[in-house]
Amino acid sequence: MASDKILPKLFEFVDKNAESYKQLLKEAVAIPSVSSDAKYRADCVRMVHWTQDKLKELGATTELRDVGYQTIDCQEVKLPPVLVGTLGNDPKKNTICIYGHLDVQPALKSDGWLTEPFELVERDGKLFGRGSTDDKGPVLGWLHVINAYKAIGEELPVNLKFVFECMEESGSEGLDELLMEKLKPEGFFDTVDYVCISDNYWLGTTKPCITYGLRGISYYFLEVECAKMDLHSGVYGGTVHEAMSDLIYLMNTLVDKDGKILITDIYKSVAPLTENEKKLYDTIDFNPDAYRDSIGAHQLAHKGVKEQILMHRWRFPSLSLHGIEGAAFQPGAKTVIPGKVIGKFSIRLVPNQEPEEVEKLVFDYIHKKWAERGSPNKMRITAQSGRAWTENPDHPHYQAAARATKLIYKTDPDMSREGGSIPVTITLQEASGRNVLLLPMGAGDDMAHSQNEKINVRNYIEGIKLFGAYLFEVGKLPK
Amino acid sequence: MASDKILPKLFEFVDKNAESYKQLLKEAVAIPSVSSDAKYRADCVRMVHWTQDKLKELGATTELRDVGYQTIDCQEVKLPPVLVGTLGNDPKKNTICIYGHLDVQPALKSDGWLTEPFELVERDGKLFGRGSTDDKGPVLGWLHVINAYKAIGEELPVNLKFVFECMEESGSEGLDELLMEKLKPEGFFDTVDYVCISDNYWLGTTKPCITYGLRGISYYFLEVECAKMDLHSGVYGGTVHEAMSDLIYLMNTLVDKDGKILITDIYKSVAPLTENEKKLYDTIDFNPDAYRDSIGAHQLAHKGVKEQILMHRWRFPSLSLHGIEGAAFQPGAKTVIPGKVIGKFSIRLVPNQEPEEVEKLVFDYIHKKWAERGSPNKMRITAQSGRAWTENPDHPHYQAAARATKLIYKTDPDMSREGGSIPVTITLQEASGRNVLLLPMGAGDDMAHSQNEKINVRNYIEGIKLFGAYLFEVGKLPK
Repeated sequence: MASDKILPKLFEFVDKNAESYKQLLKEAVAIPSVSSDAKYRADCVRMVHWTQDKLKELGATTELRDVGYQTIDCQEVKLPPVLVGTLGNDPKKNTICIYGHLDVQPALKSDGWLTEPFELVERDGKLFGRGSTDDKGPVLGWLHVINAYKAIGEELPVNLKFVFECMEESGSEGLDELLMEKLKPEGFFDTVDYVCISDNYWLGTTKPCITYGLRGISYYFLEVECAKMDLHSGVYGGTVHEAMSDLIYLMNTLVDKDGKILITDIYKSVAPLTENEKKLYDTIDFNPDAYRDSIGAHQLAHKGVKEQILMHRWRFPSLSLHGIEGAAFQPGAKTVIPGKVIGKFSIRLVPNQEPEEVEKLVFDYIHKKWAERGSPNKMRITAQSGRAWTENPDHPHYQAAARATKLIYKTDPDMSREGGSIPVTITLQEASGRNVLLLPMGAGDDMAHSQNEKINVRNYIEGIKLFGAYLFEVGKLPK
Repeated sequence: MASDKILPKLFEFVDKNAESYKQLLKEAVAIPSVSSDAKYRADCVRMVHWTQDKLKELGATTELRDVGYQTIDCQEVKLPPVLVGTLGNDPKKNTICIYGHLDVQPALKSDGWLTEPFELVERDGKLFGRGSTDDKGPVLGWLHVINAYKAIGEELPVNLKFVFECMEESGSEGLDELLMEKLKPEGFFDTVDYVCISDNYWLGTTKPCITYGLRGISYYFLEVECAKMDLHSGVYGGTVHEAMSDLIYLMNTLVDKDGKILITDIYKSVAPLTENEKKLYDTIDFNPDAYRDSIGAHQLAHKGVKEQILMHRWRFPSLSLHGIEGAAFQPGAKTVIPGKVIGKFSIRLVPNQEPEEVEKLVFDYIHKKWAERGSPNKMRITAQSGRAWTENPDHPHYQAAARATKLIYKTDPDMSREGGSIPVTITLQEASGRNVLLLPMGAGDDMAHSQNEKINVRNYIEGIKLFGAYLFEVGKLPK
């Protein structure tokens, strides 16, 4: 077949098979592969095996790599294996390493889901279900498009390598060691030319984008202990220095009402805004009012000014207070004085903030505030961090992805950054030494991590075509 | 039998049957009658039926009174029935109304229990298990002593009325209406002379006490909403006014590090400390160092001065921050921006604070602080409150209980107050118009509401005898 006929044929096949793609996503969503909760660990393993079977059916050679154990609630729990695979080894073709994850965030109907979270339900052109967009839909997208090439009798335009893990939502435990200390020395990345990750979203809901930057994250556990157990507030209230009031005091020193971080010198190493970068924001398709309405906020920060909103998502650090472990969290009127509480907050890191430097600033600031407090209780702060990431969006790999996107969506994609963090991006960049690209499938209102997560049928099906066009375009890049 | 022979015989019988009393407590503890969680509602009902069967075996006439429905997580759930009973109607005898509760606080082994919470385990003279001391041990104590009188062939020295509910740990829903609008008009309290409640603890671990005062409670739900759902902190961090930082700000305005409540005028209506009351504290048996060590605190409030500690438990209000609903509470690094959070705090009320007055002070203060904050988010505060309670400890009923206590423990009990709240105390006082007395069975380190709740074997077995001597002493009071 002439090369200009291949993609139309591929797209036709994808359109014809839309129902079977939904069916397979339904199967994947039905496996509650929640990585943060030990009681779903068997489901995580099942999800990995399910995906391995699909890869094998496509002709890939696969391996399940053991990555050891983790500790949850003082118990040793075996980590799900990482699924590693190879499809094709033609030395004349480019080789793409594809990463995706098979685990999901926790979800309960009682959290506010309108449908059962682990049952894929189609409504109004949307497929609702936990993992539909983050990240089972995109992972299946790769499998579907490989199958589509086979089905229309065309060989794949590239060789593929796969790294599918099942711990992404829980810090990708064990993955960095596997990539850097096993797969890299074993030569897994020797033939890799490009790395592609589909685990993020469009900026808005209509215009596609390709992502060249991510914020990092520095996550803090701020622990205060006043007693060796929880206490009845009637019996003990008024006689102890309560850990909660100390913790609330410390958490209140971190950020002001407008989101400005109050930690001394925290903005010092943030990359200065150049005139060139400033101009980039002008053309980006982003509607602050729609963004505000989609989350039901009364008023956005920074007066809702488009450029400010984007810059504070992409290139400035932000600090969020996530919650408190050890305190009352249930509905109702629990009257306990918690004995030990752990406040959780995180700072999204940006170029050129180094995690070690930021951690030191936070530790110093907290220790200073704690000394000012003068409490007799015990305080401890720990952190886990990952650096921010950026690539050059003018790289041929990005241009190939841009051509593929335009072919599907008839518009040039925005070159965007993201406020979130995908630490494996940096590890894959280091392990392969190659250009890494983020190619989103879902839309900006997909509500990953939140209640009623969904992927639009359009994004899912056109996304499969996008992946097909991307493989095709990368296949044309000079070897 | 001569009346001075009855009690020794009764005590001998109780000692001989200690093992069977432990066995019955084991049965009761094994029913996880957690009232705050709808999924244990059937167990609550089972616990009520179990107790009804025991009362019937003792010859009491019993009734299960329907108290309607409650709403948990937007679902209508039927309340457990209240068990009401009568044993004896001799007009020449005094009649005591006994109250107890059959429900328990939630408990999970993973909260830090050393044993399974719903399995009674004896270790070092202590019976560990949820409900062992609060309040299944005391409720069974009444049943055991009635049985003991029967077994030794002696008639009960008093008539008894019973009110056993299964919602005490969840605000005694439905009980007030039952007592005031049904049982009182029906004449249930007409023959009652005294009310006795065993649902509290000694002040320390060795000296018994009788309790004539309780603090009230005013419980607050402070809600801040920034978005209609939870948001990914990477994607949205830096662009929204986060509800958590507003809530933490408000919670930080309530109390200082030494436990002083910062709400304007909150101490204004607290009963002044008279010289007479001040002297009462001198003789009370209370060791602040042992109290501090028992909870593993580094340093108590008020420099650990005995009188100050007692006064701040009994006669001064205290404010505790309990936790936050809607925020991350799990172990691990959840990176969510909560859309709506509800801060929980409560103030323990003392004479002469009126709940309505305190609620108004808190609402006014929070609204003022909220205006100062200038946040665009939605804020709402609601409360539920119960007044403090005191009786006159010189009343003959108290003196009878003091004689009974001395007979068992060979020492005069302290006349004490408690920091906690048992709202039904006031309702029973109002419904009966009679003197109400709190007769504790357990010790001050029993850890009700906390991990590793226990009752000492000694307190359990001597407590049964104490109840027997109490019935005997009240039987001698002039009719």
